[in-house]
Amino acid sequence: MTSLSEKAAENLAALREKKPLIHNITNFVVMNYTANALLAMGASPVMAHAQNEVEDMVSFAGALVLNIGTLSEDWIESMLTAGRKATALGKPIVLDPVGSGATALRTNSAKKIIAAAAISVIRGNASEIRSLRHADSRTKGVDAVHSVDDAAETARILAQELKTTLAITGPVDLVTDGRQVVRIANGHPLMGHVTGTGCTATAAVGAFLAVDDNPLSAAATALAFFGLAGEIAGENAAAPGSFMIQLLDALYTITPEKLREGCKIQEE
Amino acid sequence: MTSLSEKAAENLAALREKKPLIHNITNFVVMNYTANALLAMGASPVMAHAQNEVEDMVSFAGALVLNIGTLSEDWIESMLTAGRKATALGKPIVLDPVGSGATALRTNSAKKIIAAAAISVIRGNASEIRSLRHADSRTKGVDAVHSVDDAAETARILAQELKTTLAITGPVDLVTDGRQVVRIANGHPLMGHVTGTGCTATAAVGAFLAVDDNPLSAAATALAFFGLAGEIAGENAAAPGSFMIQLLDALYTITPEKLREGCKIQEE
Amino acid sequence: MTSLSEKAAENLAALREKKPLIHNITNFVVMNYTANALLAMGASPVMAHAQNEVEDMVSFAGALVLNIGTLSEDWIESMLTAGRKATALGKPIVLDPVGSGATALRTNSAKKIIAAAAISVIRGNASEIRSLRHADSRTKGVDAVHSVDDAAETARILAQELKTTLAITGPVDLVTDGRQVVRIANGHPLMGHVTGTGCTATAAVGAFLAVDDNPLSAAATALAFFGLAGEIAGENAAAPGSFMIQLLDALYTITPEKLREGCKIQEE
Repeated sequence: MTSLSEKAAENLAALREKKPLIHNITNFVVMNYTANALLAMGASPVMAHAQNEVEDMVSFAGALVLNIGTLSEDWIESMLTAGRKATALGKPIVLDPVGSGATALRTNSAKKIIAAAAISVIRGNASEIRSLRHADSRTKGVDAVHSVDDAAETARILAQELKTTLAITGPVDLVTDGRQVVRIANGHPLMGHVTGTGCTATAAVGAFLAVDDNPLSAAATALAFFGLAGEIAGENAAAPGSFMIQLLDALYTITPEKLREGCKIQEE
Repeated sequence: MTSLSEKAAENLAALREKKPLIHNITNFVVMNYTANALLAMGASPVMAHAQNEVEDMVSFAGALVLNIGTLSEDWIESMLTAGRKATALGKPIVLDPVGSGATALRTNSAKKIIAAAAISVIRGNASEIRSLRHADSRTKGVDAVHSVDDAAETARILAQELKTTLAITGPVDLVTDGRQVVRIANGHPLMGHVTGTGCTATAAVGAFLAVDDNPLSAAATALAFFGLAGEIAGENAAAPGSFMIQLLDALYTITPEKLREGCKIQEE
Repeated sequence: MTSLSEKAAENLAALREKKPLIHNITNFVVMNYTANALLAMGASPVMAHAQNEVEDMVSFAGALVLNIGTLSEDWIESMLTAGRKATALGKPIVLDPVGSGATALRTNSAKKIIAAAAISVIRGNASEIRSLRHADSRTKGVDAVHSVDDAAETARILAQELKTTLAITGPVDLVTDGRQVVRIANGHPLMGHVTGTGCTATAAVGAFLAVDDNPLSAAATALAFFGLAGEIAGENAAAPGSFMIQLLDALYTITPEKLREGCKIQEE
């Protein structure tokens, strides 16, 4: 593999050149911000959720983003339909299991989507990702994670079991496809004070999946890019309102060269 | 009661420390702004509206915010379900009867929610609040309000009849639990040029209810806090776009001390 | 007709004075931004989509805005109901056929709405507008448009066939009622990097229709106003996040006089 900082620059350049259509079935809270972020970074967002439209739409798309943040039964059905179609067409899918583990509806819906479609990347925080384990997961005994190395090993096993790439975000992000483990140290504390930054990171992964067919490098470079935008925003803003606007600006102004230099990706 | 400016500082400090989960079933227009405002002030917002999820979600919440701004039948059912569950669990509920009085659907839905659940605070403008009167309300004859004192007396009677605390916002806000009447003079004219500032004030009341079990002081201090944020935003912005961003910033930067000094709450 | 730059100033002054209620049934992505833009320019936005409420709401409105950006079956029904009621009451309607031509659901829904209601103005880009042609349209043979004059002639014929005014936006906007053709050269490239600027232009047309009963001049002056706001925003912002905020500010600060001077409307 090319070094991931080099790959990040390549992916961003490809995104700006190809402007892939990213089909989002996402939550009401973040639709506007996500669409603006995708546009700012260079992708072409579309939001479409009708049961009788999602198959048409996904067939034009470079990637499908599924986000369960404000679920209801008909939206789950549409996510399943879109997910199956994307799988049949070989289109990459990224899933954001927002709040999985908190309510039965969310946990069950995330698991249904994973069972129904070939998910390239699942992006969530540690507790959301942990909730996706099967009842007989080999990670079930490992509830006490004693170190960063334990966390990586647990994630690696879970990625194998779920047959996907996991992108677990936090102060340092961890991405694993079940074999390789990568850590990304880009980001800024104010990202936690703006709603939907996790969801928007997921959308960024979707955009990078549309130009990079390796889920591990697509996810890692997307998170580095999004985190770097947060760092730049944090230099220009000290509170969440200004920060969220500066973050959109940074997604637009970061060049591939700047991304290559600013990446904090560590391969293990 | 401690002086309300002291209580405002205490409530804000408690909110920042406890970061209570605030469960919102609200309208599509303001979901993003409301979530960002709640995060900025220190609360943990969640939006969830599915009939088969709201009972789970409200059981984790410190308060429930119900807002009828973009109603449809299934959302009303979910609000009723969530409201009944919150009542059974003794969780505080704030209702925003957006547009009640304008259409039959809104007036009837607001009244149904009030009948089904124990509402701690109703936050609306004068015409929305007036539309909630029963057919035989003692305030019905008082259609001509001749003075500020008349308005206060009418509100006090209505609060008794509805068995709740009313927070009636306008150039000067009025809060009454049917006994005491409090006025809050914080605010800025540009708040009327940003969509959802009323809805966001309601969400702020929800956040303060999660840390203050007296509805009168929770509502009054939340409105003072939100109004003060508007004043600070107005010092830094002269038009609505910049203003709405500065308002989010101010919700984050106002300290309990600054709130204590900036409160314009008058107890009668 | 008064010169259109004069008419633009008159319309903006009337909008600020009358603050007409604009009833929007629009998509989830742009609801917040559209509402803020309408408020900033001086109108009173309301969003309402329930089947059992839209007739009530449209009866209070100065204009109805229908936008099919995030469709589903129940929303289409509500748009049809609201459109029929507005037609019966003689209220102006503007339609934004977002994505028409991309999926069958969108094309069919746009055509159903056009068949059911008297649409004053349809605002879209060239491919969306083209998708609305009947199977036997006289424009069908004209697939190769060789010049700007060809485009204008095609649009003129299509407006006659659809019995409406077409507002086709792009680097230069074209408005025609089937007789007269007007071009508007206001705008800024960053508008294409913010989600919902097209939808917001449509909402601006709705606001101007509420104060100007000539669809051609209402649409042309609204697009000039919105485009001028983009130009002013572009002087103050170099990236999409800041730009979208500055655009809201400009909608609020542009005076009728400034609009008269800044209009780039060319009548043919």
